[in-house]
Amino acid sequence: MSETQYDVGLVGLAVMGENLALNMLEKGFSVAVHNRTSDRIDAFLQRAGREGFPRTYGARTAEDLVRSLRRPRRILLMVKAGQPVDDTIDRLRPLLEPGDMIVDGGNEHFTHTERRARALESSGIHYLGMGVSGGEEGARNGPSLMPGGPRAAYDLLAPVLTRIAAQVEGPDGGPCVTYIGPGGAGHYVKMVHNGIEYGDMQLIAESYDVLRRVGGLSNAELAEVFSDWNQGELQSFLIEITARIFRTPDPQGAGELIDKVLDASGMKGTGKWTVQDAIELGVPIPVIASAVDARILSSQKAERVAQSALLQGPTTAPLGPTERAQLVQDVRAALYASKACSYAQGLSLLQVASTTRGWNLPLGDIAAIWRGGCIIRAQFLARIKAAFDRDSQLRNLLCDPGFARELADRQTAWRRVIGQCAAHGVPTLAMSGALSYYDTIRQSRLPANLIQSQRDLFGAHTYQRIDQPGTFHSEWAK
Amino acid sequence: MSETQYDVGLVGLAVMGENLALNMLEKGFSVAVHNRTSDRIDAFLQRAGREGFPRTYGARTAEDLVRSLRRPRRILLMVKAGQPVDDTIDRLRPLLEPGDMIVDGGNEHFTHTERRARALESSGIHYLGMGVSGGEEGARNGPSLMPGGPRAAYDLLAPVLTRIAAQVEGPDGGPCVTYIGPGGAGHYVKMVHNGIEYGDMQLIAESYDVLRRVGGLSNAELAEVFSDWNQGELQSFLIEITARIFRTPDPQGAGELIDKVLDASGMKGTGKWTVQDAIELGVPIPVIASAVDARILSSQKAERVAQSALLQGPTTAPLGPTERAQLVQDVRAALYASKACSYAQGLSLLQVASTTRGWNLPLGDIAAIWRGGCIIRAQFLARIKAAFDRDSQLRNLLCDPGFARELADRQTAWRRVIGQCAAHGVPTLAMSGALSYYDTIRQSRLPANLIQSQRDLFGAHTYQRIDQPGTFHSEWAK
Repeated sequence: MSETQYDVGLVGLAVMGENLALNMLEKGFSVAVHNRTSDRIDAFLQRAGREGFPRTYGARTAEDLVRSLRRPRRILLMVKAGQPVDDTIDRLRPLLEPGDMIVDGGNEHFTHTERRARALESSGIHYLGMGVSGGEEGARNGPSLMPGGPRAAYDLLAPVLTRIAAQVEGPDGGPCVTYIGPGGAGHYVKMVHNGIEYGDMQLIAESYDVLRRVGGLSNAELAEVFSDWNQGELQSFLIEITARIFRTPDPQGAGELIDKVLDASGMKGTGKWTVQDAIELGVPIPVIASAVDARILSSQKAERVAQSALLQGPTTAPLGPTERAQLVQDVRAALYASKACSYAQGLSLLQVASTTRGWNLPLGDIAAIWRGGCIIRAQFLARIKAAFDRDSQLRNLLCDPGFARELADRQTAWRRVIGQCAAHGVPTLAMSGALSYYDTIRQSRLPANLIQSQRDLFGAHTYQRIDQPGTFHSEWAK
Repeated sequence: MSETQYDVGLVGLAVMGENLALNMLEKGFSVAVHNRTSDRIDAFLQRAGREGFPRTYGARTAEDLVRSLRRPRRILLMVKAGQPVDDTIDRLRPLLEPGDMIVDGGNEHFTHTERRARALESSGIHYLGMGVSGGEEGARNGPSLMPGGPRAAYDLLAPVLTRIAAQVEGPDGGPCVTYIGPGGAGHYVKMVHNGIEYGDMQLIAESYDVLRRVGGLSNAELAEVFSDWNQGELQSFLIEITARIFRTPDPQGAGELIDKVLDASGMKGTGKWTVQDAIELGVPIPVIASAVDARILSSQKAERVAQSALLQGPTTAPLGPTERAQLVQDVRAALYASKACSYAQGLSLLQVASTTRGWNLPLGDIAAIWRGGCIIRAQFLARIKAAFDRDSQLRNLLCDPGFARELADRQTAWRRVIGQCAAHGVPTLAMSGALSYYDTIRQSRLPANLIQSQRDLFGAHTYQRIDQPGTFHSEWAK
């Protein structure tokens, strides 16, 4: 074994683990790596050598890994979520000492993280669950990191995390990492991040759909529109790559690649988990839920093709040039307003989860660390951070005066887009879910009085009155 | 104890149990009842006497109840779901013999029913979970019954169930009960029934909202409209009682009661369970999910009142008389089309649950037993039954040629309503969810190609092509 005492241990050299290890090496930390199969270790050592990082060590066994590390030991797991994490913990646990820490950097369900933390508690080994966002490139050059677990353990890890995280520049900048909270809070916040990512992607897809089908925009025009949007209030990684996608030629023939890509989108589970927990906690998140539904329905391609012959749509004429220009402006406004609703929903979920589970989540700081490194990174998040700086108790993001004004300014355009999509047969699961959410939460009077009356009539469920306290049951007219 | 051998035992004399017992007595079965507290037994015996049913017996203990019953014993539990069911089973189990049966008629989660059935298996005691719908009145005069569990046990119970269930008249009529399937299938189908009920109620509430706020209809006009609708394709118990509600004067002052009822609707859990299992199984049911969301948001009354001052709506003028008449026609069509989508979603959920869990659910027969007794009873269900009679493998209800034509005929009106609601700021969580569902499932080409492209660009998730088999990953334009 090596005589050197390495700063960090890393288990799991798939694409994310390998790139995080290189990131740490580049920032000056020494890293001992371990992998279940040896060939990955060899490949990693070669790549590290090529890139000029000598301060690394390939541990062939768990024992070797643990012996090579400085105390207290800091071991980052980048293995597949589920059983592989349990297996790795089982191998490490007997080798570790009180004060050592294990950090799971995978996309794990927060309840599993909490179960493992409890199981390790008696041994004095700290257990952290850390969300890592940004894909391969983020892992290598600076991801957004969402670590949760014991605060003291986080403090021992922070010197590494603040160096390897994405750095936001400017006077309000800083590393894209902060202490999220105890228990499974880190993995939970990463899960909601992914849910919001689903919402963003679906809203962009619906914007594309209406521009293409109602506005008749070509791929070149779409690329220009999204590039333009990326200069303003919609600036974000996802808008930027959308413009790039419309510019990518088909490597196998004429035209753009986008037109050859199958319209069936996959998913890995974090969006579904987000919706499940929102239902558990009773927090409506219709944009994210619609995005999950839309992915499921997209994957049923054969059924849709059969159904397209049976289920009629409207017959509508394409727009003229003036109407097209207006449509592009309107969709921009609708996308922004819908996006704000989606984030309001996701943040409401975080707020309720935080209260329910005693996590004390720092919502403003969470928005701040999403400004860089991760898939949803956007200028927009600085505005969310500012909203929570103005009012840390903000109940709903849309109640921030800045956001309220932005939605008021955009509502006419937004409403026009929903009407046009309905008329033209363009589905807007997420965008119309966003508008109905907005129109629901701003009503002092909803038609739920009818539902309560029905429930009292058929089930004697009773009702309350608006003009006096108490609980009532009535005989309703025959 | 009694010398007579009673036909059926019933435990739990709350409103549903009491009325089911009277129903059985009226149909000529002798019934021994038991309740945890004795005063309910006394009250029941007095009521049974008053109503002229002598063939009943009040058992003061579980032993007394079991001794009083004919073998094999048939014991119906009408106690609160959860722990009370487990407690009752624990008390009965040592007193029963192989071949006896316990039937849980409460609103229990199907997984609990399956757990209890497994626990009783070795004892030879049959366990059934039975959905009972129709409220107090249904229980007394004929509910819709959804029994699930061992087929042989069902057959022993069927002579009772077919007599006490609601009876649909006419050549295609019959009792509103059928064997649903093994395990927890009965409780599952009741759960989805309730989810569909949530959807129906929310769609009616949204129809009310647009007629009132956009059309400016008075309660008297609304009563007339719903009475009229109840004569046609929308005929149903819920439409009928809606008309009655608009006619009910406020017992405490001027005007109609509906305007005094608080717009905050409660719920008991089955809607939430339906949405949870739909997510688990990957079946989009946006109408039912929206209905649950709408109830949650309605209950946040104080927040909505505060938000109504912050979040702006559009300024729109009320409609003129001609437009109003058109609106009433349009909303009728939109409600019908949305309702069809909601049932298509609920039935898809049943279909996937049936396949996943090996229940072999008889979808057409399930629609048939919902025609009477239960809250969602409607003429409409006969059309669903007919659709499954035409094609038992029907993948989606909307693919039935009859329903496909009905939606095609109504789509223009439906699209107008969604557009008008968007323009006027009337929220349509459920109705626009229905339209987007329709517009999604009928597309041979969705914008999910963009989502797949994004996923490949940032996460190397790969994509498929429309023009050749295989899995691809591309370098996207910079």
